Amino acid sequence: MKGLLVSTIKRNDDENHPIIKEVYQDIKQSRNTTYIGNFWRYLAFDPDLLKNVWTDIKNIMVKETIIPNKTKEMIYMAVSITNNCSYCIHSHTAAAKKLGMTSEEHSEFLNIIALAAKTNQLVNGIQVPVDEIFNVDIEN
Amino acid sequence: MKGLLVSTIKRNDDENHPIIKEVYQDIKQSRNTTYIGNFWRYLAFDPDLLKNVWTDIKNIMVKETIIPNKTKEMIYMAVSITNNCSYCIHSHTAAAKKLGMTSEEHSEFLNIIALAAKTNQLVNGIQVPVDEIFNVDIEN
Amino acid sequence: MKGLLVSTIKRNDDENHPIIKEVYQDIKQSRNTTYIGNFWRYLAFDPDLLKNVWTDIKNIMVKETIIPNKTKEMIYMAVSITNNCSYCIHSHTAAAKKLGMTSEEHSEFLNIIALAAKTNQLVNGIQVPVDEIFNVDIEN
Amino acid sequence: MKGLLVSTIKRNDDENHPIIKEVYQDIKQSRNTTYIGNFWRYLAFDPDLLKNVWTDIKNIMVKETIIPNKTKEMIYMAVSITNNCSYCIHSHTAAAKKLGMTSEEHSEFLNIIALAAKTNQLVNGIQVPVDEIFNVDIEN
Amino acid sequence: MKGLLVSTIKRNDDENHPIIKEVYQDIKQSRNTTYIGNFWRYLAFDPDLLKNVWTDIKNIMVKETIIPNKTKEMIYMAVSITNNCSYCIHSHTAAAKKLGMTSEEHSEFLNIIALAAKTNQLVNGIQVPVDEIFNVDIEN
Amino acid sequence: MKGLLVSTIKRNDDENHPIIKEVYQDIKQSRNTTYIGNFWRYLAFDPDLLKNVWTDIKNIMVKETIIPNKTKEMIYMAVSITNNCSYCIHSHTAAAKKLGMTSEEHSEFLNIIALAAKTNQLVNGIQVPVDEIFNVDIEN
Repeated sequence: MKGLLVSTIKRNDDENHPIIKEVYQDIKQSRNTTYIGNFWRYLAFDPDLLKNVWTDIKNIMVKETIIPNKTKEMIYMAVSITNNCSYCIHSHTAAAKKLGMTSEEHSEFLNIIALAAKTNQLVNGIQVPVDEIFNVDIEN
Repeated sequence: MKGLLVSTIKRNDDENHPIIKEVYQDIKQSRNTTYIGNFWRYLAFDPDLLKNVWTDIKNIMVKETIIPNKTKEMIYMAVSITNNCSYCIHSHTAAAKKLGMTSEEHSEFLNIIALAAKTNQLVNGIQVPVDEIFNVDIEN
Repeated sequence: MKGLLVSTIKRNDDENHPIIKEVYQDIKQSRNTTYIGNFWRYLAFDPDLLKNVWTDIKNIMVKETIIPNKTKEMIYMAVSITNNCSYCIHSHTAAAKKLGMTSEEHSEFLNIIALAAKTNQLVNGIQVPVDEIFNVDIEN
Repeated sequence: MKGLLVSTIKRNDDENHPIIKEVYQDIKQSRNTTYIGNFWRYLAFDPDLLKNVWTDIKNIMVKETIIPNKTKEMIYMAVSITNNCSYCIHSHTAAAKKLGMTSEEHSEFLNIIALAAKTNQLVNGIQVPVDEIFNVDIEN
Repeated sequence: MKGLLVSTIKRNDDENHPIIKEVYQDIKQSRNTTYIGNFWRYLAFDPDLLKNVWTDIKNIMVKETIIPNKTKEMIYMAVSITNNCSYCIHSHTAAAKKLGMTSEEHSEFLNIIALAAKTNQLVNGIQVPVDEIFNVDIEN
Repeated sequence: MKGLLVSTIKRNDDENHPIIKEVYQDIKQSRNTTYIGNFWRYLAFDPDLLKNVWTDIKNIMVKETIIPNKTKEMIYMAVSITNNCSYCIHSHTAAAKKLGMTSEEHSEFLNIIALAAKTNQLVNGIQVPVDEIFNVDIEN
C-alpha cells in the first residue's frame, strides 16, 4: 500500500474549549446522535469557524424548511460529487440515507447527476449560446 | 462590448432529417411546447448523439419516476452550477420554475449549494479523513 | 452577436427593505464607497442571505486581520480563477488593485497560479502518492 | 481497507541520469534540503519535463521576488485546494508552514478560501452579470 | 494509516441477474478479457444504468470508428485527469497502454495536458476575450 | 444585452518591445500566419511569461513529435472543455479543424468527452475503489 491519507492540520480533540463544547452539545442534541464526525473535530482547529459552519448547517440543513431535508441532502450530494469531495460525498450520502433515501431514489439520483455531467460537457464543448427565452427580465 | 459568445459548430436548422424530425416531434409532444432550444439545435450537428441525449433526458427527467420532476431539475441545477455551465444553469432553472419551484425554494436552494461549496472547500483544504462510520460495507 | 448574458433571478433594486438598507449602508461605510455592485443587488433577492454573506465578507475580507487585505484578495482571486467565476475574478482583481496590487505583483501572481494549475494537472495525471513526510501527525 | 493509492507510472529512482542528477542537486542546494519528494521522483519519468517544471518552480516560487515566498505558497495552496489536488495541498501547506505560516494565518486562509468558494457558487448559481465599472479599458 | 477508501453503495456480486449476466458476457467477449472491474461491479447496483453505460462504452470506445481506439483512450484520460477522477485515470491509462500507448507517447501526453491546464488558468485569470476570427458562423 | 465580457488587464499592442517582437515573429513564421490572437496580445502584459508560454506551445504543440499535431489539439480541447475555458475551447477547436479534424471526427470527439464526463461523475458519486489490477508496480 503506497500513499497516505492524512490531513494538513491536527485533529483537535479538546472538548473543553467553551465554543467547541457548546457546538458539540448542539450537534448531539439537534441531530439526536452521540457521534461527532471528523469534519467537526478538524474544524475545531478554529473554534470560531467551527461555530460559523455549524450555525449555517443547523439553519439550512437541520432545521425544517420548505424543501424536505432528504431533498436538501441530495442537492448537497450533487454539489459534493461534482466537486469530487470524497468526505462530503460519504457524509451527505449517509445523511440522505438516514433521512429515508431508498436504493431506488439513490439509483435515480445517480442517473440524474451522470446525465447532467454529460450534457454540461456537451454544452461546454459546443459552446451553445443561451436562448433569448431564458432572459428572466423579459420572461417574468 | 468586447468578446464574442459563439459556438464551435454551426447550428443545424435542418428539420427534415428523419432522426432530427422524430426527436423534435417527440420533444414538442412530451414537453407540450413548440419551442426547440439551442441545445437541441446544436446537438443536431450529430443526429445520433441528439437522439441518444434526448432518450436519456426523456427517460430520466421527463418521465414521472419516484423523485418528483421539480426535485430532479434542482439536482440537475446543482451539478450545472458547480460545473459553471451557463446554458445549463439557465435552461434547468427555467425548467424547475416551470415545474413549480417558488422564489422561496429557489432561495433555499441557493443557500444549500453555497454552503455545500463552502464545506467542500474546507474539507479539501484540511484534507479531512473519512470516518470509519461511513464504510457502507460495515454499516449496512 | 449571439448569446445572452443574463441572470436566473431578477435584480432587486428595492433599497427600502430594512435588511437590504442596513447592509447597503454598512457596505458604503465600511468600504468608503457609494457604489453597490451587482453581486449585492442580486443577492438582495434573499435579504437574509445578503446579510449572511456581507457579514462574512466584512469579518474576513474588510476587517484588518493578520493577513494583509491585499494578500487576502489575491488568495480570493486564486480560488475564483480556478473556479472560473468571471464576475468574482473581475471584482476581486479590482479590489486587489485598489488595495495596491501593482502590475508587477499581478504578473507574479499570474505566473504562480499558472504554475500551480500545471503541476496540479501533472500530479493528477500521474497520481503521485503523498510522501510520508507530509503526515502532520508525525511531523508536528 | 479497500481501494488502492497508486500512480499510473513507475517512480524513477535512477539518480545517475545526467538531467535528473543535475535537477536533484539544484533542488537540494536551492532549498537547503536532502529530501527529494515523490513529485520529483515520478516526474523523473520524463527528465526534460522534470527540468522544465523545476526551472519554473525555482524561478517563480524559490527565488526571492516582490511577493513574499510565504504568500506565494498560500496562493499556490488556494489553487491546489480548489482543484482538490491532494498531493499538492500537502506539499504546499508544508512549504507555507516551513516559510512561517502560523496556525492563525492558516485559520484565516481557510476562512478566505471557504468564503470564496461560497460566493463563487452563488454568483454562478445566480449568473450575476459583470458590472460596467469592472471594465479595465474604461477604468484605467 | 488514517482515512478510508470506501464506496457509497455496496458492490453487487450477483452475476445471475439477467441484465448483469448479459452485460458481463458482452464485456468479456468484446474486450477479450475475463476480468470485470470494480466500475462495472458497482454500477451493477442499478442494472439498467449498467447496461446504458456499457452500451455507450461499447459503441463509442470499443467499436472501431474513425478516431483510433488508442487516441480515444487518451482523450478520455485528458477529461478524467482534469476532473481528477482517480479510478477513471487508472482504468483509462491502463486501457491506452494496452492499446499500444508507449512511454514516449505517455510523456508527450502529460506535457500536453499540463500545458493546457496552465494556459486555461492564464486565460481565466486574464479573462481573455474571444477573437472575432473564431466565430464559426463567419469563418466557415 | 446585460453583462460585460472584458479582461482584467489591458491588451498590450506594443509590438516594439524586443521580446514581444521576437515572439510574434516566431509565431507568424512557425505557424505560417499573419494573425496574432488575443491570447498572445494579453499575455504580452508580461513579456517573459509570453515567451515562456510560447516556448512551451512551440515545443509541445507546433513541433512535429510522435503524437500527430491534430491529435494533440484534440487532447488540448478535452482539457479546455473540462475546465470550461471558453477562449481555449474556441482557439484549439479552430486549430484542430485547421489541422484536418473533420466533422465526423468532431462528432466522435464530442461523444467521447461527454461519456467521460458521465462516467467520471458516476465513479465520483459511487466512490468506486481502484482495482488492484491497476497497480503499475505489480502490473509492469
